[in-house]
Amino acid sequence: MTETVDVRRRVLEANEAAARLLRERFAARTLVPNLISSPGSGKTTLLEATVQRLAGRLRLAVIEGDIATERDADRLRALGVPAFQILTGGACHLDARQVDRALAEAHFGDLDVLFIENVGNLICPTSYDLGEDFKVALLSVTEGDDKPFKYPAIFARAAVTVLTKVDLLPHVTFDLEAVRVQLATLNPTGDVLLTSARTGDGLAEWCALLERRLAAKRSAA
Amino acid sequence: MTETVDVRRRVLEANEAAARLLRERFAARTLVPNLISSPGSGKTTLLEATVQRLAGRLRLAVIEGDIATERDADRLRALGVPAFQILTGGACHLDARQVDRALAEAHFGDLDVLFIENVGNLICPTSYDLGEDFKVALLSVTEGDDKPFKYPAIFARAAVTVLTKVDLLPHVTFDLEAVRVQLATLNPTGDVLLTSARTGDGLAEWCALLERRLAAKRSAA
Repeated sequence: MTETVDVRRRVLEANEAAARLLRERFAARTLVPNLISSPGSGKTTLLEATVQRLAGRLRLAVIEGDIATERDADRLRALGVPAFQILTGGACHLDARQVDRALAEAHFGDLDVLFIENVGNLICPTSYDLGEDFKVALLSVTEGDDKPFKYPAIFARAAVTVLTKVDLLPHVTFDLEAVRVQLATLNPTGDVLLTSARTGDGLAEWCALLERRLAAKRSAA
Repeated sequence: MTETVDVRRRVLEANEAAARLLRERFAARTLVPNLISSPGSGKTTLLEATVQRLAGRLRLAVIEGDIATERDADRLRALGVPAFQILTGGACHLDARQVDRALAEAHFGDLDVLFIENVGNLICPTSYDLGEDFKVALLSVTEGDDKPFKYPAIFARAAVTVLTKVDLLPHVTFDLEAVRVQLATLNPTGDVLLTSARTGDGLAEWCALLERRLAAKRSAA
């Protein structure tokens, strides 16, 4: 299996190099959050709610990663936001070179925020830097309160964890305090937001976080 | 990337060889379902409900696959069922050699049903034969009704799809008929069951399916 490890190392090194170039391109201009979660945690739904709140004042675009279908990009385009769909054809994560090619094809122009929605997968996308400013891990309350410790890498690395579908808390068993303890253990400096796209809970806080991070990136430049 | 493809092909070939040996070992004796889903779809919860119904009349054991924690195996052991936890240390799926080593260490003895609960991931486990009789794909109704077409490989290959958490249908947007159409398109001969571990809906049907498949395997031998 040494051969497998070597190939994996080289793939990751090539990805790092491509991610560095992307990060230079985005520097001081565009905020790039990389959204990662299980299938069905609500990444696209969070983005729909986000662009409806921010599209008036910020220039936004979305890169969507999926195994199959243009469905997620179509959902964003329906809201008037430019969206480019990457189909990975089976691969369980996006990589930086795919993002680079997507940007070349998409012609988004100048952007304030470029959202990258990764392939629905709580494991594989963790290791692939896409030149993003920060990773956002989503966890829906219907997935259970044991998930941070069961999938520690992503929750340790994500600067922001968004708990989604909190409107369903009355209908499921989910110990919010236990999740907070796991997240604080894995990632003491990370932000944790509670949201519901259905009720709107937490969305203003999420949008404020994006605007604050965009301003901080530009003022640091 | 040809090198990557070559290595992947060799890894899959080695897995196939190990899976063939496992399948011979299980032949005519032990039914082996391989449960695959996103994190939090309810694999362990379905197994808890299943062993509570079947443990009186069948000899059962469980192999659990996770990135981290013994938590899932502990949940089954608490019900008196032998369970062996495989920790993949980051890998996004189980492979046949891990199952072989787990069997050597676990000393389960003669079994009627050996459940394999794969790592929570709707993509990677699809390609890895574990010597199972059939794959079971779980999809919770909270994950959304677009998932079969977005993750087609697993729903095309799973002989059985179990829709879980149907007690939450009144609280979520989920077009059951749209999911049935997608599943029928991808997998015309597959079984589809609707279950809720909370209310018990569909669990008798699921257990009957397991007993029927066990009887069929033994009578075919």
